[in-house]
Amino acid sequence: MTQFAIGVDLGGTNLRAAAISVSGQMLGKIAAETDLSKGPGQVVDDIVRSIETLRQRHREQRLTGVGIGVPGFIRIAEGLIVGSNNLRCLEGYPIRDHIERRLGAPVVLENDANAAALGEKWMGAGKDVEDLVLLTLGTGIGGGIISHGRVLHGFVGMAGELGHMTVVTNGNPCGCGNRGCLEKHASATAIESMSNLLGLGEQLSAKAVFDFAVQGDERAKMIFTAMGQALGTAIANLVNIFNFPLYLMSGGVLAAWDFFYPALVEEVRWRSFTYRNTQTRIEKAALGNEAGLYGAAYLPVQAHRVTTE
Amino acid sequence: MTQFAIGVDLGGTNLRAAAISVSGQMLGKIAAETDLSKGPGQVVDDIVRSIETLRQRHREQRLTGVGIGVPGFIRIAEGLIVGSNNLRCLEGYPIRDHIERRLGAPVVLENDANAAALGEKWMGAGKDVEDLVLLTLGTGIGGGIISHGRVLHGFVGMAGELGHMTVVTNGNPCGCGNRGCLEKHASATAIESMSNLLGLGEQLSAKAVFDFAVQGDERAKMIFTAMGQALGTAIANLVNIFNFPLYLMSGGVLAAWDFFYPALVEEVRWRSFTYRNTQTRIEKAALGNEAGLYGAAYLPVQAHRVTTE
Repeated sequence: MTQFAIGVDLGGTNLRAAAISVSGQMLGKIAAETDLSKGPGQVVDDIVRSIETLRQRHREQRLTGVGIGVPGFIRIAEGLIVGSNNLRCLEGYPIRDHIERRLGAPVVLENDANAAALGEKWMGAGKDVEDLVLLTLGTGIGGGIISHGRVLHGFVGMAGELGHMTVVTNGNPCGCGNRGCLEKHASATAIESMSNLLGLGEQLSAKAVFDFAVQGDERAKMIFTAMGQALGTAIANLVNIFNFPLYLMSGGVLAAWDFFYPALVEEVRWRSFTYRNTQTRIEKAALGNEAGLYGAAYLPVQAHRVTTE
Repeated sequence: MTQFAIGVDLGGTNLRAAAISVSGQMLGKIAAETDLSKGPGQVVDDIVRSIETLRQRHREQRLTGVGIGVPGFIRIAEGLIVGSNNLRCLEGYPIRDHIERRLGAPVVLENDANAAALGEKWMGAGKDVEDLVLLTLGTGIGGGIISHGRVLHGFVGMAGELGHMTVVTNGNPCGCGNRGCLEKHASATAIESMSNLLGLGEQLSAKAVFDFAVQGDERAKMIFTAMGQALGTAIANLVNIFNFPLYLMSGGVLAAWDFFYPALVEEVRWRSFTYRNTQTRIEKAALGNEAGLYGAAYLPVQAHRVTTE
C-alpha cells in the first residue's frame, strides 16, 4: 500500500491542505476558510474536515501523518502556539493533540516559515543542498533554517525568527518590542510605510509601489533599494553565521526582485568576507505559496523515516 | 590500551598543546613559541615537536588523533587556512596534511573559537546541553556554534564568524570590509578605541579602562555599557535565530562582567521576544584559555566515535 502525507497551511482567514505522496508528488489540494472568532474548537473542526476530505479522496493509500504550519512562535514538544499575531485565539490551546485525537494519525505542528523552508529543501530550490535559509517576505518576514536536511528548532521550537533580526540599530519600532527589525525595513508593510514617508502616495500597496518603480519613478526605486539594503544586511549576518550554501527568498514581493536584488547583493558583498570568498547562492524560492504545504507534509514523512523510494 | 587525544592551540606567537584522555581528563600540557617569520615549514616542525613530546610522555596509551585550533577562516575539508590576520604565512599551506603525514595519526584542523565552543560543550559550561553559542572576547571576537553536540561548520567551514555580525548599521570600519562589526564595538580593542574617543586616556589597555571603572570613573563605566549594548544586540540576534538554551562568553574582558553584563542583558531582553519567553541562559564560559585545547582534543575523539566510557 503506497503512502501519502497531508500538509496544512493555516493562516488568519484561510486554510489550505494538500495530499502529497511520500516521494513528493502533489496529489491534490483544497482550500477552505476558517473563522477564528468562533474559537479554537471551530478551527480544529475546520482543519479536521479538510484533512478527512483529502483522506477520503486518497483512501486507497495509507496516511503517514499530517503536518500543520502556523504563523507564530510555537513550542514544538507540546504542539502549542505560544505567540501569534494572526492566531491569537489559538495561543496556548492544545491544537496538535486535539487534531491528532480526532484523526488517529500522527500530527506535527510547525512554524509556517520553517515548513516552507523544509518544503523548498524537499522539492524546491533547495533540493540539491542539505543546509539553507529561507526568508518569507510578506506583511511580516518569517524565516526557516534547514541544517543537515532538517528544520533547526532550538530548544523550544522558536528558532528562525529572522524577521526580528536587528538590521538598523535604532530603526523602526516593531510589535515584538525591538527597534530596527528586518521586517520593519524589508517587508511589504515596510515598503508601504516608506512610500508614505517619501510622499509617493498615501496607503499605497507594495504592488502599487512596484508599479511606480516599473514606470521609472525614482522614489519608488529608492524604496526598493533601501529594502534591498536591509535584506542584504540581514543576509550578510546569516552568511557570516551559517556559511550555508543557499539563501532563498519567497513571497509576493519577489515580483520586485530586479529592483531590490542589486542593492541586496551589493550589501552582502561588502558586509561579508565569507560571501566574497565562497560560492554562496542567494536565490528565489521555487515553490511559491505551495512550499509550506510541501514542507508540512514532509514533516511526518521525515519524522517517521518513511522510505520515499 | 586506553586512549588519549592531543589538542593544539596555535596563536600568532604561541603554541600550546595538551594531552587529554578520551573521557576528558587533562593529562598534561606544554607551551612553546613559534616564529612565523621562518615560514610554514618551521611552524609545522614546532607543532609536530610539541605533539611528539606529549605522545612520548603518554606512550603507554594509544593516540586517537590530534585537533588543531587556529585563528582565522578555514576550509575544513581541505584542512587549509584561507584567511587569518595572525597566521598569514600559513594561508593556503596544506598544514593539516603535512602534520598528518609526519605523525601518522589523524589530524583535524578547526577554527580556534569553534574548538573553544566544543571544549565548553564537552567539559565546560555547556556540559548539560547539546546546543550553544560561544563568543570569545579578545583583541577580536570569535564565535563558535555547537548544534546537536557538534561544531556547525557550514559548507566550507567558515560558520560562526560572529565577531563580524553587523551590530551598528554604519558603525566602525572593520578589516573584513564591513562597518559596525561586533568586534569593532565590543572587543578589548574596541574598549581601547572608545577610551581614546572619550578622552579617558591615550592608548589605555582594556585592563586599564577596567581599573578606571572599578575606581568609579563614569566614562570608563560608560564604555562598558556601550560594549554591553553591542554584545546584547548581537546576542539578541543569535537568540532570535537559534533559540539555543545557552550563550557563553570567554576572554580576559570577562573580568569586567559586572560592568557590561547589566547593559547586555537589558539589550537582549528588549530586543528578543524569544529571550523574554524562554529560559535562555547567558553565562561565562568555564574553561578559560583551556577551552580550545579541550575542544581541539575532542575533535578526533568525536570524529572517530571513540567510546569515552
